[in-house]
Amino acid sequence: MLTLHPSGTRPLYAQIIETLQREIADGNLPAGTRLPSSRQLANDLHVSRITVVTAYAELEAVGAIESRGGSGTYVLPPWTPPRPAGRSGETPAALLAPTFPPWQCELVPTVNMEREQVLGQVLRGPLTPDTIGFAWGAGDPRLIPMTEFRRALLNVLDHDGPAALGPEGGTGYPPLRQWLATYLRQNGLDATPDDIVITGGTQQTIALVAATLLQPGDRVITEEPTWPGALEVFAAAGARVIGIPLDEGGMRHDRLVDALEHEQPRLIYTVPTFQNPTGAVTSARRRQALCALAEQYGVPIFEDDHVREVRFGQPIPPPLAAFDRRGDVIHAGGFTKSLIPSLRIGYVVARGPLREALIARKRTVDLFGSALMQRTLATFLESGAVAHHWRRISRIYHRRHTVMLRALEGHFPPGSKWSGVSGGLVLWVRVPEGVSVAALHDAAATAGVGFARGAAFFAKPANQPYLRLNFAAVDESEIDRGIAVLGHLVKEVVAM
Amino acid sequence: MLTLHPSGTRPLYAQIIETLQREIADGNLPAGTRLPSSRQLANDLHVSRITVVTAYAELEAVGAIESRGGSGTYVLPPWTPPRPAGRSGETPAALLAPTFPPWQCELVPTVNMEREQVLGQVLRGPLTPDTIGFAWGAGDPRLIPMTEFRRALLNVLDHDGPAALGPEGGTGYPPLRQWLATYLRQNGLDATPDDIVITGGTQQTIALVAATLLQPGDRVITEEPTWPGALEVFAAAGARVIGIPLDEGGMRHDRLVDALEHEQPRLIYTVPTFQNPTGAVTSARRRQALCALAEQYGVPIFEDDHVREVRFGQPIPPPLAAFDRRGDVIHAGGFTKSLIPSLRIGYVVARGPLREALIARKRTVDLFGSALMQRTLATFLESGAVAHHWRRISRIYHRRHTVMLRALEGHFPPGSKWSGVSGGLVLWVRVPEGVSVAALHDAAATAGVGFARGAAFFAKPANQPYLRLNFAAVDESEIDRGIAVLGHLVKEVVAM
Repeated sequence: MLTLHPSGTRPLYAQIIETLQREIADGNLPAGTRLPSSRQLANDLHVSRITVVTAYAELEAVGAIESRGGSGTYVLPPWTPPRPAGRSGETPAALLAPTFPPWQCELVPTVNMEREQVLGQVLRGPLTPDTIGFAWGAGDPRLIPMTEFRRALLNVLDHDGPAALGPEGGTGYPPLRQWLATYLRQNGLDATPDDIVITGGTQQTIALVAATLLQPGDRVITEEPTWPGALEVFAAAGARVIGIPLDEGGMRHDRLVDALEHEQPRLIYTVPTFQNPTGAVTSARRRQALCALAEQYGVPIFEDDHVREVRFGQPIPPPLAAFDRRGDVIHAGGFTKSLIPSLRIGYVVARGPLREALIARKRTVDLFGSALMQRTLATFLESGAVAHHWRRISRIYHRRHTVMLRALEGHFPPGSKWSGVSGGLVLWVRVPEGVSVAALHDAAATAGVGFARGAAFFAKPANQPYLRLNFAAVDESEIDRGIAVLGHLVKEVVAM
Repeated sequence: MLTLHPSGTRPLYAQIIETLQREIADGNLPAGTRLPSSRQLANDLHVSRITVVTAYAELEAVGAIESRGGSGTYVLPPWTPPRPAGRSGETPAALLAPTFPPWQCELVPTVNMEREQVLGQVLRGPLTPDTIGFAWGAGDPRLIPMTEFRRALLNVLDHDGPAALGPEGGTGYPPLRQWLATYLRQNGLDATPDDIVITGGTQQTIALVAATLLQPGDRVITEEPTWPGALEVFAAAGARVIGIPLDEGGMRHDRLVDALEHEQPRLIYTVPTFQNPTGAVTSARRRQALCALAEQYGVPIFEDDHVREVRFGQPIPPPLAAFDRRGDVIHAGGFTKSLIPSLRIGYVVARGPLREALIARKRTVDLFGSALMQRTLATFLESGAVAHHWRRISRIYHRRHTVMLRALEGHFPPGSKWSGVSGGLVLWVRVPEGVSVAALHDAAATAGVGFARGAAFFAKPANQPYLRLNFAAVDESEIDRGIAVLGHLVKEVVAM
């Protein structure tokens, strides 16, 4: 049934994937079709069985096919909800034949399955008991300064009265904005409390700015790879992402100029400091050039400064916004990655019409913020405890970073690539050619090790030979054990 | 310069407003034009000065003109940020000539000034020291069960460890969904914990559903008047609102059928229980009919069940979703109005593709919720303290409702209209013909009394002779004093 046209340049498993995807798209393999077993197909195509298994694992990861235990592997409809579509508690018959009104069945999801799965996993947190949590995206929750946070919380509850439990609308709690203005000025960014709008975290800030600036069809420049949450926002806004590859200084200047010259982008989204997922730091010179380009081409820049506080000693340039002469940089930060995820507090520096538009948009999406959390955070920050906390986690994460580098060196086969970072929480690791990251992911999960698959960090997820590994939230001994498991699995695939 | 064409059917001040609006729109009065003083224009037009003052106040409320203290009244550009567009701390010269990049100056706001101002005021909370806060939209923060909430919070902090400060993604904290499922079943709504998705409050739920279901140009049916926050969401989505007037049973059936028949709406947004702002309760019969219509025309219904817990003794029908046979009703509730605004927690009952789409959309807009707040709320609810709290506030608000009705009876002039409600937090009051609510609002603010202007509750804000008055959050003695001030001001205008 299936024939391959070996081109010599593409690995066999990739050819199987492409052929099956084409057959499914063309309708030759309609939803529900039972695919040949991996053994059967391997025989038919004269390839090794592991090649077919890898191809099937990839296709299953992107939601194109589904393995149903003993009964075989089936082609899925274009989109299937990951959960049985019916009420729990209903009979299996009802589960098999769910009836939803037509307006529901017509819903077209804007999400990408690969990204969705990675984000779902990333957000479960690192405290899953059976897993070494390299997938998690933030810091080690066990290092949260609980005593100081508890003290700040009680201080607010006991002294601020009912106002502490009310709404905090508009730009947010003034003393919090006051603290942030001072903090930002210390970082080289000239902002007053009035220039700061408190949001529900950086993800919300990205969504607010996208809703304010983007129309369907607009183009957005990002680093490639980049933060999948931003890619989800841009996809939901109907925007097209133009990914610019990175070199040692940040976004490649020639490619950036080319995109600005020919694509008329409406926004540049960048993570200049400890880029997510690569950890790259855009150089001061490039920051200057980026701001000049924004001014020249009239394109605003969103600076996602998500984890500036975690650094390993090397000097880093001031925020991009510090190089901004005209108001082209929208600077965003938050407290999820380097303090407490449950706060749900971020901030954005914006002036003029943009500021007014963001305040209105924030009100539209959730009316107001939590006075309790904003007051507690302000009290905590004013106590000075955060400076000690940031120094402490930087020291501990730096050690874990060293341990992970050593473990990668010891356990990963030749052909793997990574480089150390000067801050942040993650490493970006390239596995040797031919290793299916989706298959590796499933095997690693079975062995109790989680990581974030690289594909999710690209605008067009496909097999990408990368893993994002969080070193910050895992104990040193666990890091070595987890990397050993991963290295062993990678070597197995390479040897096969 | 200005001439009136008295038609006999429209009040004089309304004719002045319309004439000025037309002249501004036609470009005969460009931005920056200084208008004649009210005394001058009154002389020119041979009308009383208060007529011109009223017209100017209305135009100022909708952002068309601006009174600059002693220097006169000026025509504004189509949109002006409510805040001086420049950094605070800069010199006055810089404030007068702010320089923002062109991409900022091109920003087109989707918000409506009248709605924006009312919402801004509504959200400031009722605890402003100098104001009798009839404008506020939720309950009395002084009645929040602080001791029990504090106990729940400490319980979570001290027993749940670092997980309590982590992310709470996906559908939300399972014990909270478990409690809600039981609660909803007690209210006649058959839901399992898996059918419930925790959100960041009902406003976020509305925004998530709108983003999932609506495309620009889609039509949405709402009650008219209705909640301005929902109108802001629909406007931001580029949807057109079809307002259906209310009669004693809910949305007028004939008008609803007519809209369904001719407008192909994509969504019906309704607040069937203690409607905002009228307090109306849709009858059981109408609920049944509404669900049948939704099924017949294939249109989903968003049920905003915002304050079901505050009731004054009369029986109320089960939620609209309890009448739903096919899954056409999206049921949403929350804890802002009847418990604690700072929780920022709401929920939506959804199944199948819609549920999956909402989970994905929620992740896109703010990644995850606060584990701390969700766990604290679950602990508080499981303690049983909420039943006592809801009985207590219902009793107190009922008394305040009675006091407000009596005060209205005593202080408002003939031609005013209102009716008592069987639950909720607000009364909807119609003032006599010819009273400018915008002018009344400014005069009342000067006298230390706040209320929500009725215009904001209509899809097309214009002068509307309504006030929304919160009786729940104001002490009984203050209610009488505040209503006396309002009644006095209304009488003055009527007599003029």
